[in-house]
Amino acid sequence: MVRNILITAGGTSEKIDEVRVISNFATGKLGLAVAKAFLENESMEIGKIYYLCDKSTHAPSHEKVEVVRVSGTQGLLDALKQILSENKIDAVIHSMAVSDYSVRGVTTLEEIQNNGGEVHPGFIEGKISSDIDDLVILLKRTPKVIGEIKKLQEGSLLVGFKLLTNVEKKVLIDTACRLLEKNRCDFVLANDLTQIEGDKHIGYLISADGEYETFSTKQQIAEGIVNSIDEKLRERSHGL
Amino acid sequence: MVRNILITAGGTSEKIDEVRVISNFATGKLGLAVAKAFLENESMEIGKIYYLCDKSTHAPSHEKVEVVRVSGTQGLLDALKQILSENKIDAVIHSMAVSDYSVRGVTTLEEIQNNGGEVHPGFIEGKISSDIDDLVILLKRTPKVIGEIKKLQEGSLLVGFKLLTNVEKKVLIDTACRLLEKNRCDFVLANDLTQIEGDKHIGYLISADGEYETFSTKQQIAEGIVNSIDEKLRERSHGL
Repeated sequence: MVRNILITAGGTSEKIDEVRVISNFATGKLGLAVAKAFLENESMEIGKIYYLCDKSTHAPSHEKVEVVRVSGTQGLLDALKQILSENKIDAVIHSMAVSDYSVRGVTTLEEIQNNGGEVHPGFIEGKISSDIDDLVILLKRTPKVIGEIKKLQEGSLLVGFKLLTNVEKKVLIDTACRLLEKNRCDFVLANDLTQIEGDKHIGYLISADGEYETFSTKQQIAEGIVNSIDEKLRERSHGL
Repeated sequence: MVRNILITAGGTSEKIDEVRVISNFATGKLGLAVAKAFLENESMEIGKIYYLCDKSTHAPSHEKVEVVRVSGTQGLLDALKQILSENKIDAVIHSMAVSDYSVRGVTTLEEIQNNGGEVHPGFIEGKISSDIDDLVILLKRTPKVIGEIKKLQEGSLLVGFKLLTNVEKKVLIDTACRLLEKNRCDFVLANDLTQIEGDKHIGYLISADGEYETFSTKQQIAEGIVNSIDEKLRERSHGL
C-alpha cells in the first residue's frame, strides 16, 4: 500500500518587525534524517512526503518530497489544515520546534509603567529604530499545533517530539508521556538538549503503552521512527 | 602586493534562553558575493580573507578563506579585536546585520508593573517555560561595532552598510552619509529592504566625498565594492 507522510522540521521564526525575528536553535537535521529514512525504507512504499519547514531550514530534494515553506506558527497551522483536509496522510512526524510565543508588539519599559503594557502600534510597522534604550518585546502564547493534528485527520498516526534541557530521565519520560496522552500521539520522541552534540543524539521513542526504545544517533532515531510507523500501519491494515 | 581582507556577513543571533534567539532575516548572500568577487578579481592578489559570521550563516569554502564563527554582537566584537590587533588587514567589509539589541532578561508584564522592570534572573537559565501568559523580553542596546573598526586598525579601509525600509532615496543616502562620517568609513553601501527581491538588489555605493555609484544586483554590488577597494589601495600605494 502506498503511504503518504507529513513531516514538520526545523524551527519556526516569529516576526518582531520587518527585519527581526524570534527563532530557535533547531537545525532541522532530525527532520531531514526522518525523511531520508522513509525514502530508504524498503518495506514501505512512499507516495509523497509533505515537508513543512521555515524558509531558512534546509529541506530534502527528492521527487517524492513536496517542500512547503511556512512562516511562523500560524503559517504552519494554516498549511497543516489545508494538507490534512485535502489528502489522506498515513503519518505525521511533527518534529518542528514550534515557538511557544509569538510577538504581540514592541514597546518601552516607560510605556508599560505609564500605560500598563499597551502596545505601541507604530513600532512594528517597518524596522524598529535602533536608538531606543529600554525596548521591550511583548509576547503572546501561540496555539498548540500538536493538539490540532488528530482533530484534522483522526486516522493519521502522530509522532510528537519533546525537548527539555538538563532534566532527569524520569522527568523527561513523564513529561513526554503527558504530551502523548494529551494530544493522542501514537509515539513521542523525548530528548534532552544536553544529550545532543554533533552526531550523538540520545532519544527515547515512547509508544502509547508507555514502553520506550532508546537510540543514540539521529539516524537511529529516524530509522526507529520509520520502523515503528511501518509496524503500526501493518497492524492496522491487518485489522489488529 | 598581497592583500588581506576581513568580511563580516549574515545576521547575528542574540540568545534569549538555551533554545531561543533574536535574529534577523539577513541571509549573508551579499557577503558571499563579496568574498567571491575578491577571489575572482584579477588585479588584486589576495593573501587571506577572514570571514566572520554566525554559526547558521552559509560561509564560502576556499583555501584562502578562514571562516570565524561568532556568537552575538559581543562575540563579533571579540573576534574583530583579536584579528585586527594581530594581523595587517587592508580592508574590512562589514556587511553583517549586527543586532542593535541584545537580551537583558526575560520577565512578565506583572513583574514590571509591580517591581519597575526588574529582570527575573531564573528565567534565562535553561529554557523558558511555555506556560506563562504575559512574557516580556527586555532588551539593551549592543555596542556599535562599526565604530570600533578604525580604532582597532587605523590604516584598514572600511566599507559600512546601511539598510533602511521603505524610505525616500534622499533619506537613505543622507543616513548612509552620516554613518560614513561618524565611523570614518571609506565607503558605505546604502540599500532599502523594499528594493531587494531575489536577484534584484538596488544598492548605492557611497564614497567619502559623497559621490555614489548605483548597482542593481548583488553581483554588481560585490564587484563594485571590490573595484573601489582595489582602486583606493592602489592610490595609497602610489602615495596619492
